[in-house]
Amino acid sequence: MLDIRIEKTQNPKTLPEKDNPLVFGTIFTDHMFIMNYELGKGWFDPRIVPYQPIVLQPSAMVFHYGQEMFEGLKAYKTEDGRTLLFRPNKNWERVINTNRRICMPEIEEDVFVDAIKALVKIDEAWIPTKPGTSLYIRPFIIATDPFLGVRPSNTYQFIVILCPVGAYYPEGLNPVKIWIEDEYVRAVKGGLGEAKTGANYCASLKAQVKAHDEGYSQVLWLDGVERKYIEEVGAMNIFFKINGTIVTPVLNGSILPGITRKSVIELCELWGLPVEERKISVDELLDAAKSGALEEVFGTGTAAVISPVGHLRFEDTVFQVKDGGIGQISQKLYDTITGIQLGKLEDTLNWTVEVK
Amino acid sequence: MLDIRIEKTQNPKTLPEKDNPLVFGTIFTDHMFIMNYELGKGWFDPRIVPYQPIVLQPSAMVFHYGQEMFEGLKAYKTEDGRTLLFRPNKNWERVINTNRRICMPEIEEDVFVDAIKALVKIDEAWIPTKPGTSLYIRPFIIATDPFLGVRPSNTYQFIVILCPVGAYYPEGLNPVKIWIEDEYVRAVKGGLGEAKTGANYCASLKAQVKAHDEGYSQVLWLDGVERKYIEEVGAMNIFFKINGTIVTPVLNGSILPGITRKSVIELCELWGLPVEERKISVDELLDAAKSGALEEVFGTGTAAVISPVGHLRFEDTVFQVKDGGIGQISQKLYDTITGIQLGKLEDTLNWTVEVK
Ligand SMILES: Cc1ncc(COP(=O)(O)O)c(C=O)c1O
Ligand SMILES: Cc1ncc(COP(=O)(O)O)c(C=O)c1O
Repeated sequence: MLDIRIEKTQNPKTLPEKDNPLVFGTIFTDHMFIMNYELGKGWFDPRIVPYQPIVLQPSAMVFHYGQEMFEGLKAYKTEDGRTLLFRPNKNWERVINTNRRICMPEIEEDVFVDAIKALVKIDEAWIPTKPGTSLYIRPFIIATDPFLGVRPSNTYQFIVILCPVGAYYPEGLNPVKIWIEDEYVRAVKGGLGEAKTGANYCASLKAQVKAHDEGYSQVLWLDGVERKYIEEVGAMNIFFKINGTIVTPVLNGSILPGITRKSVIELCELWGLPVEERKISVDELLDAAKSGALEEVFGTGTAAVISPVGHLRFEDTVFQVKDGGIGQISQKLYDTITGIQLGKLEDTLNWTVEVK
Repeated sequence: MLDIRIEKTQNPKTLPEKDNPLVFGTIFTDHMFIMNYELGKGWFDPRIVPYQPIVLQPSAMVFHYGQEMFEGLKAYKTEDGRTLLFRPNKNWERVINTNRRICMPEIEEDVFVDAIKALVKIDEAWIPTKPGTSLYIRPFIIATDPFLGVRPSNTYQFIVILCPVGAYYPEGLNPVKIWIEDEYVRAVKGGLGEAKTGANYCASLKAQVKAHDEGYSQVLWLDGVERKYIEEVGAMNIFFKINGTIVTPVLNGSILPGITRKSVIELCELWGLPVEERKISVDELLDAAKSGALEEVFGTGTAAVISPVGHLRFEDTVFQVKDGGIGQISQKLYDTITGIQLGKLEDTLNWTVEVK
């Protein structure tokens, strides 16, 4: 177990009221985890301290050269009062891949998971219990060298903050409308697309604003090379049910390898559904929609778990997925995954990790 | 003139000693400029304060979603004691393009230039005077909303810091060795390549480390679509002299529009040299090198002004540019631009702006 120095807050905040809608990403708990890194010394001084501002030199590299990464996972309160994390070791695997890609030091699996467990434990009272709510966990690493010039930083801070959250999509498990983007590109093979780093999100803003202005809640990205293969949504991976087969874009280097994506694939395989990870073009999608072969579309991600997609728009073509409602597989996946996360269903796949 | 609140430092630092080598990006002056932005209110409270840390919530968007931009320009001390900026209004034009691309609020031209002038004036004593030295100016904007979730921030800080600098490339006007990268991609059409934002620099780290390990000081990027057209160097644009013609990659959306690049093109045209902005493939470059048609290669950027390139490597092919030395046009461009910057040559093109 990681040896964490703990300084408890002297001024605990009042917990959000039970009927507080908990707007995603706006309320933070009483404590945060911090650990520093120096080249030659490694990670040191893991500590939990009162939630407080970060103080950095204006020349800190994170402000200039975007060397930053983050993760996102959730803690859930079960009816019998246990606290469960969902596959945190998969987040750690992604941390390793991200950090390698952007030249950040790695973190050991135990250190990553223990830090999260210890922090969640201390702020356990903040985990909301209403349906659809949870405690969002945001680990992130920033480059802190006070240096102007392009190179990997020699110093970093690894920080974890916590956020009690309601549903990410105000629509809830209501079908969302998705905009297929043909002008801007999020990421390209050889770039940062499969890393969870600020760059990909900064690159997504412009198309997102455009889509919102047109009344669409999310952007569906196409590949940056041929501009015809489907990649993923702003903060979700994407799945299609076509003629009874579950199809999702294959991880090609420019798509974020989602943990919900992985869980959905594993569940579908368990259920004996045919699953294909492969290239899928926007033309194939349009044809499938026209012919009626397109039975369901849904996004997968930690925030909303499963987001049924009711409408898509590509250039001037708007099309509805079946009756525009919630597909049967979408609903079953949602019920199963949230059931496991909340301890209502038996966790036969060993996906949850209890915080003790 | 912008109405700037000024709070002078009570503890001025000692100026670097005359023979301090001034390692790029490590020494900062006594003051900084800051201005805040809030949606609905616009930019407010422009102020010059003692150089000090930035204090942000751990949830500040800049740490997570990479919404950040920067600029880079220099102030020079002339022999007769004047302080000159080099084409600051071109940096402002680039700010506008960057900010539009990454959904940041714009800044007025006068505000941008006045802020820089006022800050440089206050810290004028920090401008070094030895040959090759200057005062590097780093304006940057960071997204400060304490919010987790992908959207443009509603609050920002615009900050300017100053750095007395020696030569950026320790090699000085010595030919550098350049690594042509065939695995990683910096930026792609539709992405952020033409914006001066952290994402592009984060994307460049991995290849840069690889190139350094192989003994190359900079990476030359190829386009992300066909992986065969030359784009630019890590922090420089690139020029070739082929059969008497000056060739540089055309601005295609994934290349940073350098101000030194622009100045070089304008000078070459003034001198009656044929200049072509067009696509140039790595194959054409290799052929020109083999046939002897490749007469010069040089990078252009604020930091080093002109960087002659002596060697290039593409996959397993290493080739030398002519005798590997400094080309005639490279030298003439360097002498002319630095001559204008330092007030030694008459500024017939009206490129310099005096700080009074
Ligand atoms: C770009 C992107 N794709 C996909 C996902 C889904 O990944 P996960 O299922 O691990 O939350 C996310 C969010 O985490 C994301 O930001
Ligand atoms: C990626 C990149 N390309 C080119 C340049 C050169 O631009 P400028 O001549 O304006 O300094 C820079 C540096 O500023 C840069 O960072």
